[in-house]
Amino acid sequence: MALYYPDDEALERLRLVGRGSDHPLVRCQGFIFDVDGVLCRGEDPIPRAAEAIERLRRGGKRVVFLSNNSTKSREDYLAKFARLGIPVIEDDLVLSTYATAEYIAREKPGAKVYMVGAPGLRRELELAGLELVEDPFVAEYVVVGSAFDGTGRIREDNAHRITGALRALYHAGAKFIATNPDRIFPAKDGVIPGTGAIIGALSYMLGREPDAVIGKPSTHIVEIALARLGIPPSGCAFVGDMDTDMLAGKRLGMTTVFVRSGAMTEEVLRSLGIEPDFAFDSVIDMLAVEG
Amino acid sequence: MALYYPDDEALERLRLVGRGSDHPLVRCQGFIFDVDGVLCRGEDPIPRAAEAIERLRRGGKRVVFLSNNSTKSREDYLAKFARLGIPVIEDDLVLSTYATAEYIAREKPGAKVYMVGAPGLRRELELAGLELVEDPFVAEYVVVGSAFDGTGRIREDNAHRITGALRALYHAGAKFIATNPDRIFPAKDGVIPGTGAIIGALSYMLGREPDAVIGKPSTHIVEIALARLGIPPSGCAFVGDMDTDMLAGKRLGMTTVFVRSGAMTEEVLRSLGIEPDFAFDSVIDMLAVEG
Repeated sequence: MALYYPDDEALERLRLVGRGSDHPLVRCQGFIFDVDGVLCRGEDPIPRAAEAIERLRRGGKRVVFLSNNSTKSREDYLAKFARLGIPVIEDDLVLSTYATAEYIAREKPGAKVYMVGAPGLRRELELAGLELVEDPFVAEYVVVGSAFDGTGRIREDNAHRITGALRALYHAGAKFIATNPDRIFPAKDGVIPGTGAIIGALSYMLGREPDAVIGKPSTHIVEIALARLGIPPSGCAFVGDMDTDMLAGKRLGMTTVFVRSGAMTEEVLRSLGIEPDFAFDSVIDMLAVEG
Repeated sequence: MALYYPDDEALERLRLVGRGSDHPLVRCQGFIFDVDGVLCRGEDPIPRAAEAIERLRRGGKRVVFLSNNSTKSREDYLAKFARLGIPVIEDDLVLSTYATAEYIAREKPGAKVYMVGAPGLRRELELAGLELVEDPFVAEYVVVGSAFDGTGRIREDNAHRITGALRALYHAGAKFIATNPDRIFPAKDGVIPGTGAIIGALSYMLGREPDAVIGKPSTHIVEIALARLGIPPSGCAFVGDMDTDMLAGKRLGMTTVFVRSGAMTEEVLRSLGIEPDFAFDSVIDMLAVEG
């Protein structure tokens, strides 16, 4: 019935809140965690999130971390997780950069890809054995991620890439793949554009939507995370702070867990007609002190 | 009945093709000419276009030139017209840069404007007495034109401006004005993005369309050209090579003249359900040798 193997007396009293072993959350063997708003807010860790992950792992649960981040490689994220105090290896991380590379590599191994985006995206495309091309006229795929830096400037090495992607799609008939559909993000001085800016620019010019969007709420990225867990969706929970997390989880038949520690209130979530299976203030509250 | 006052024997025989003085084209006192595809193709003049303009003027017709170009000021266009052999002053030119500046200056004189686009757009906004601001949070209007150079690179001084425009619209509630809706243009090495790339990026991120688009097929730019002619639309002809020209002209009750010297075939035009009042191979054919 215990979800973990506590190593001292205080931990021993921690249990999933008043639940028997037949409780859906106790029966889940795999957990997919969204990152921002769940484990951290920007650079700040969510209190006791690292502890919650540690306890789940000790309880024999399998855990992967999933993010729509389109600018970082899994390698880049190792440092982020170190700062959060959560030990991970690259195989524990499913970012939209990596998931996009996997998606294309499964569909067409070694495909010629013209990319719009950051070095972290390039790195994952290369690791998946895809051929990065600079000539749009030979591209078989166009991959777009966010092309903006943290201050909201178009990255210097991307100044020609919206046109390159346009040409690959218009002249060369390349397939159009987006890492994620996120529109805007908060930043220190105001909002900054997400991948949506590039999707919007190309879609308006060409009068067509992407052939595939990999990140949430699409199920592509979650299917890749489930494959990593090696557990069927019915035995897995998706823990997130956004409508997109709950939608993606529900579409695949997973148990959905909403946490109130992120950008979206539970009221807004429910006003969108989305009912999570469980809701907690934060991830540590999934595991609570009994008696 | 003659549309012009010929100055030698050869010219004397030129007339509007077999038409009496009650012919709609002969009765038109004002002519609005689209530029690219009508008077030139890129840098190359359309044969005898300059001659046709000269004859119309000699016949007492008033003529203005209209273009969706969003990167040039009227000043910039003087040199272009000199190369085409067509004498003009700035008042003869209605570009989407100028028309956008006029539109905003009429709606709110001296308004604070945050712009995305080229120096020619900045120039016209300044000439109209608008206040160009670099701080998106104080902007009352966002004006977007094409932010790409002739090779398809985002202009260096525009690298931060998609984000600036986003912030002015998202945080400051600015009005969203686009110079023109053009999506893509042909160029030497392949297509390059038009203003549509910027409209698409912002529209996708914000889930809203521009409050106004000034260039064709919108009637805003044509109304500004008609005001310049000082002749009611029923007494004016719109001469163009595209569906957008014919649509804008018809919406305002003008006589529409299609020329086959541009990018669109008459077959495609008619397949779109658009019937121009007249169609000619090129502008000189509006004026033809009789007998």
